Amino acid sequence: MKYLLLALLPVVTQASEITTQRQEELIYLLHQDCGSCHGMTLKGGLGPALLPDILQNKPVEFLTATILFGRSGTPMPPWSFMLTESEAEWLAVYLKNPKHDEK
Amino acid sequence: MKYLLLALLPVVTQASEITTQRQEELIYLLHQDCGSCHGMTLKGGLGPALLPDILQNKPVEFLTATILFGRSGTPMPPWSFMLTESEAEWLAVYLKNPKHDEK
Repeated sequence: MKYLLLALLPVVTQASEITTQRQEELIYLLHQDCGSCHGMTLKGGLGPALLPDILQNKPVEFLTATILFGRSGTPMPPWSFMLTESEAEWLAVYLKNPKHDEK
Repeated sequence: MKYLLLALLPVVTQASEITTQRQEELIYLLHQDCGSCHGMTLKGGLGPALLPDILQNKPVEFLTATILFGRSGTPMPPWSFMLTESEAEWLAVYLKNPKHDEK
């Protein structure tokens, strides 16, 4: 099932698809909403830490699918009701390398 | 679908089914895990407040189903992977009247 979901994702998301304003909204959402469970500084809480070192070996596709579809058997909910695939992938890339994308 | 899920719930849960130790664990889970999104004092955060006054008009069956199955279109995840129906119902009753159940 996971592989089916991954296969549905676009291979590449152009960062330019996400406007600067939307990128700022996504970063705010990351710390406020994802931060409810992962910690506002993403150092972990109910959910695991989402720091770059920890995520470096996780493929972007895996992180994107987790954001969009949640993780069965855990409290991680699906966020596809409020994020597009491109936005979830942008967040996955950002999580692995936040400084690269920070303005 | 919601009504189907509600129909699957037992009509009555005997509080005695939940041991005192498990009740304490559930209260801890409520404040730590549910509290990640609803606030440790349940006054709201990413998710709405879960205080008795706010929940007084919500049926126990609705709250139980929400705990077990989550709320589609929101970040509320399903907790059925770690709670039984009886435990979810106990939490729903507790949320509506926490002082009644506090030791």
